[in-house]
Amino acid sequence: MSSISIIGTGNMARTIGARALAGGNTVEIMGRDQAKAADLAEALGRGTTTGAWGTAPAGDIVIVALLYDGVVPAVTHYGDALAGKVIVDISNPFNATFDGLAHREETSIAQEAAKAAPASATVVKAFNTVFRHVLEKGRPDVFLAGDDARAKARVETFVESLGLRPWDVGGLKMAHWLEGAGVLTVGLANNGVGTLDFALSVTALRAGRQ
Amino acid sequence: MSSISIIGTGNMARTIGARALAGGNTVEIMGRDQAKAADLAEALGRGTTTGAWGTAPAGDIVIVALLYDGVVPAVTHYGDALAGKVIVDISNPFNATFDGLAHREETSIAQEAAKAAPASATVVKAFNTVFRHVLEKGRPDVFLAGDDARAKARVETFVESLGLRPWDVGGLKMAHWLEGAGVLTVGLANNGVGTLDFALSVTALRAGRQ
Repeated sequence: MSSISIIGTGNMARTIGARALAGGNTVEIMGRDQAKAADLAEALGRGTTTGAWGTAPAGDIVIVALLYDGVVPAVTHYGDALAGKVIVDISNPFNATFDGLAHREETSIAQEAAKAAPASATVVKAFNTVFRHVLEKGRPDVFLAGDDARAKARVETFVESLGLRPWDVGGLKMAHWLEGAGVLTVGLANNGVGTLDFALSVTALRAGRQ
Repeated sequence: MSSISIIGTGNMARTIGARALAGGNTVEIMGRDQAKAADLAEALGRGTTTGAWGTAPAGDIVIVALLYDGVVPAVTHYGDALAGKVIVDISNPFNATFDGLAHREETSIAQEAAKAAPASATVVKAFNTVFRHVLEKGRPDVFLAGDDARAKARVETFVESLGLRPWDVGGLKMAHWLEGAGVLTVGLANNGVGTLDFALSVTALRAGRQ
């Protein structure tokens, strides 16, 4: 069981919150709009609490479920309130045409969030290759990247509580390529796959048939 | 059935050549070292031919199976001999630590090869997320990117002749993110997966269990 705080009150916050509760975790919702946070907490039920925007989250794992350009500002605003926390960045910084990243440099929202976070906090990139409705209805693989092995282990435990397979891709600099995998996922949806009903995954080699 | 020319005489040339022949395609091997090309052609058997380095390939699809830093020089050297061909770039331009790309700019070997190729040729990126031994023994998904729909369709037909699923991720600029997916594949092998016996794949959403 993990204690989760979710910063955000949108669709992704709702979906992750619902799955987290179903997996036996505790959930706190933190919204800039306190009324929206209260509404979402009530909709989620099962003891979901709310916390005031910018104050210390109740959860050990803090999932930032905001549009990508809100992530670093939120982490900066929370500041020392995030001390000791595992911050999970799930964002996709798509460019305007959804075929590249908004930042041209070889960085990621996760790496930028890590620069903005307190030294005692750690950032893990996760969930960004998963379309929301797939997370709602299916069992997609979850890729994660981060520099702190213990923080990743805690996120892996949380991912497993959702009935999903976590796949560690390496250090936080790999978050750049996970964000690129988000771009590929959209490219697949618009081209070869032709629907949103899939997820990028790891398939084990089996002799003859994989 | 496709007619395939493979530029290169290494392990990847051998593996792709063997699978191509098993799939009922014709194969020509082109090596800078003519003796090596002849040896590989003989080892592959089934009517495999050889062609002289830098001359017009017999195949409609030309797979460049060289280390990444040899791809653009080879395409440049071949020059007009590649007119009208579908050039397939399978390379992974890893950096020295295998956790990023050798080029820092948002480009790809495939895009650079396209600049070096004749105007009537088209470049398709494919196969780069697949470890060689997985291609040899398993049935990995094959991701591909390119700007020309007909060229991609021809590569897809070839991929399907190998018993593999081709997945179009979009235009050639997506080759950059496919190269990034190559980096992720190595990251997965070294971290969460812990073996080389897997491939990145597309998994369809199924209700309840994906």
